[in-house]
Amino acid sequence: MALGEFALIDQYFSRIGARRSDVLLGVGDDGAILAPPAGMDLVAVADMLVEGRHFPKGSPARSIGHRVLAVNLSDIAAMGATPAWALLSISMPAVDERWLAEFAAGFSALAEAHGVALVGGDTTAGPLTLNVQVMGFVPQGAGLRRAGGRPGDWLCVSGTLGDAAAALVLGDQASTALRARFEFPTPRLALGQRLQGLASSCIDVSDGLLGDLGKLAQASGCRAELELSSLPRSAALREAVSSGLCTPAQAEQFMLAGGDDYELLFTLPADLSGLQSEALRAAFASGEITRIGRLIEGDPSSIDLLVDGQRKAVQPEGYDHFRSISA
Amino acid sequence: MALGEFALIDQYFSRIGARRSDVLLGVGDDGAILAPPAGMDLVAVADMLVEGRHFPKGSPARSIGHRVLAVNLSDIAAMGATPAWALLSISMPAVDERWLAEFAAGFSALAEAHGVALVGGDTTAGPLTLNVQVMGFVPQGAGLRRAGGRPGDWLCVSGTLGDAAAALVLGDQASTALRARFEFPTPRLALGQRLQGLASSCIDVSDGLLGDLGKLAQASGCRAELELSSLPRSAALREAVSSGLCTPAQAEQFMLAGGDDYELLFTLPADLSGLQSEALRAAFASGEITRIGRLIEGDPSSIDLLVDGQRKAVQPEGYDHFRSISA
Repeated sequence: MALGEFALIDQYFSRIGARRSDVLLGVGDDGAILAPPAGMDLVAVADMLVEGRHFPKGSPARSIGHRVLAVNLSDIAAMGATPAWALLSISMPAVDERWLAEFAAGFSALAEAHGVALVGGDTTAGPLTLNVQVMGFVPQGAGLRRAGGRPGDWLCVSGTLGDAAAALVLGDQASTALRARFEFPTPRLALGQRLQGLASSCIDVSDGLLGDLGKLAQASGCRAELELSSLPRSAALREAVSSGLCTPAQAEQFMLAGGDDYELLFTLPADLSGLQSEALRAAFASGEITRIGRLIEGDPSSIDLLVDGQRKAVQPEGYDHFRSISA
Repeated sequence: MALGEFALIDQYFSRIGARRSDVLLGVGDDGAILAPPAGMDLVAVADMLVEGRHFPKGSPARSIGHRVLAVNLSDIAAMGATPAWALLSISMPAVDERWLAEFAAGFSALAEAHGVALVGGDTTAGPLTLNVQVMGFVPQGAGLRRAGGRPGDWLCVSGTLGDAAAALVLGDQASTALRARFEFPTPRLALGQRLQGLASSCIDVSDGLLGDLGKLAQASGCRAELELSSLPRSAALREAVSSGLCTPAQAEQFMLAGGDDYELLFTLPADLSGLQSEALRAAFASGEITRIGRLIEGDPSSIDLLVDGQRKAVQPEGYDHFRSISA
């Protein structure tokens, strides 16, 4: 093996991501020394990605580098926070410099776009597994939580649903647009920050809409009512249906339970109609966010799905990472 | 599979470790919300452990739970910091409740002993791989670094060296005392905190004494001089030699390059002789810390090893995690 563990870290990971003046000591010591801003709460998230489970074997390294940071930034967005610092741990079977360079490029581009500094981590040999932790900030007491939704609240989601799941199932037949939604998901950081003080609850949609809605409903102690016809679907997903690549029923399944959307699912008090809602009027109008249902009184353990005026109780079965992505 | 990913997390990981009032929101949301103390720097560390690489296949789950936290707390100790919060990510091939219970018990006992709250993480299916991040605090500007050692400084190490490496090599023949040093290493947190304002540089010995000394010397821009005869060896390691389980040369190799010691290696200014050194007098006298050499002017890329009055330049080749522990 041409490069040792430590040389590797130096070469690829000591200079990626944003430069920040609050990083007093970055990559290369036993730990990073950081200066948290006064008056803010610290938000910390972590996500682990395993090859063959969270991304297909042979996925482009640039996509893996992007995704492992994006899935964490999506959690930061769901808390309404602004990201600052990341730690990256990688286990990889062998040292492949071209893979590393592509991976680092994917990670770094997204990190720089959001002002995130890579401040530490670990590199080791083993099956391809990646873990990222991101730390960020939110004004004291302003963090968004899954709990807090109330009966009557509007249920809303950002972007469109089901595209990433369609890309995985369609494989080589998937359009470039669908594939990009799986390979390069966009964390909704600006939206999450705008929802501070507006949303009564928030979660990111990573394990499928029904599953994550079930968690939000459970935490909020309300039942969720979802209108199937209102779910936002992309032009690319509509095109996959109209060209016969997938059936309408499959497309619905992708939107309801596909996973890997990395959109924000949140609730807004129904009386949010005055000045407060000005901030969101344009977002509704442009389709950046869509109302897809509401919270009601009732048992949170199943979800009311409204289909053609009929009410069906469905189980909030999310994408379970103990099942393989190929299952 | 009897338990889903989320039920698992709830059952075993939502109530382990210490309770802390600065955890505003812990395990169970998209992220943790934490309240950093005023006037302190934040220290963040991460370490990943892979089965068959950092611990033998079939290691006791309680030991794995202890070690994955201990190796991170050792990094926190090397920064002179006090730990507060941890995030834990686990990839495991299948759900084994007995394994999980033992793992959680090992993790939780060490976490509680050091006031560490588990505030988040991730659980997924895959090869057995664990990643922990720990966040802690140090008074502003007081964090210990690898850089800072000066020619003339004393070179010191805590505890004893080579025990864990002996345990791995001797396998079933290793004494209980040696095995405990591998399976349940003790992070030197109290010592690290006492070294604030005293040590000119510090690193933890995880990859072998020579390798980690090489990193400290490189960061400090000095050459290290190490007296072989002064290296602290345990009664258990001496016993392994005297009973013929390993040769004296093997024991020296374990001490110099074995790895997994999780002791602190640090430098003290030579003029630290007055009131300041009172704090360390008892530690030297009891063998809690030992002087093993000094820093000198010169090329940091190799190390002067003094053996029976002879000076030998040796390469600082640490334990490289791209080699297997069974290699």
